[in-house]
Amino acid sequence: MSLINLPERLPGISALLHYRRESAVPLLQLAETLLHSNFSTLTPGEREVIAGAVSRGNDCSFCAWSHTAAASHHYGSEVMVQGMIDGDAAPPKMRALLAIAERVRTGPQSVGQEQVDAARAAGASDEEIHDAVLIAAAFCMYNRYVEALEPWVPDNPEIYRTMGAAMAERGYMRDRSQGGDVGSEESE
Amino acid sequence: MSLINLPERLPGISALLHYRRESAVPLLQLAETLLHSNFSTLTPGEREVIAGAVSRGNDCSFCAWSHTAAASHHYGSEVMVQGMIDGDAAPPKMRALLAIAERVRTGPQSVGQEQVDAARAAGASDEEIHDAVLIAAAFCMYNRYVEALEPWVPDNPEIYRTMGAAMAERGYMRDRSQGGDVGSEESE
Repeated sequence: MSLINLPERLPGISALLHYRRESAVPLLQLAETLLHSNFSTLTPGEREVIAGAVSRGNDCSFCAWSHTAAASHHYGSEVMVQGMIDGDAAPPKMRALLAIAERVRTGPQSVGQEQVDAARAAGASDEEIHDAVLIAAAFCMYNRYVEALEPWVPDNPEIYRTMGAAMAERGYMRDRSQGGDVGSEESE
Repeated sequence: MSLINLPERLPGISALLHYRRESAVPLLQLAETLLHSNFSTLTPGEREVIAGAVSRGNDCSFCAWSHTAAASHHYGSEVMVQGMIDGDAAPPKMRALLAIAERVRTGPQSVGQEQVDAARAAGASDEEIHDAVLIAAAFCMYNRYVEALEPWVPDNPEIYRTMGAAMAERGYMRDRSQGGDVGSEESE
């Protein structure tokens, strides 16, 4: 049971987005811009991997599972994405950006010239370094929002596969009249 | 000097907002909704105090100084706002919400029924508890974004008074053609 009077049967952040519609609009626009729009030369899959990795570090199961699923849909491989997030399987540019994202998560003042230069040497542009920092920072917000207010979090992996595919294909501003917010599918 | 090629002479987050215009739009809309719109029954002053307190906790000087200044403009007293942020001078409802905000900042899983019930007993509605949580979470994003990328941060208190007054009176979606983003005044 959630701590405040959230709508039941809506998983994770969707319960919060339905609870407060005014704040839902900019939160969804930010997710759409950062993860699904063409604002970045990082691929949507790379951006979802950063979101999933930061969420895993912050122990936010809902966000970690859903964004890992979105990344897996983009890459066409759950094993590859798990290897990038949990292990050392990311290509050099993504490994450098994930290292920066982890510093943003745990202590942003520890991001320094050394990390930025390593990312540049691995092929990242300054804009891509910026984008990785902002995605990591944004998930330090989304993760806290979900974890503090304790909405219902499903544990069936199939739900996350369905949700992740919708996030990857249709983004975060899906038709809200049909209940199409982030992960709002009310399935089991 | 900032770590990546940010515009010079724009203080704090304004340098980042000018560097990447696409992500600036939802970031400013979120700040406008959370801090300046009438979406919440928390006053804009109360919301700016939460933003300032979380930013102080995260050691983000730019955000702490500017949002403390905005709160001081709303309250008409720097001493009162400093007392609420640094000390124990907040009224009971705000004291309970600031305690929740601090838990959101340091470990969101530690927000529990005890903290929510204490805020309710002090007069906070469930919506106000939600809003305090989301503001605290959002500043865990804004603070990390600024601290990781190290834009220029002025140290003249008069700049922050001017900036805070503009934020309090005109909000966060000021005419951008005039360089009116969050704290974009290019003064000394």
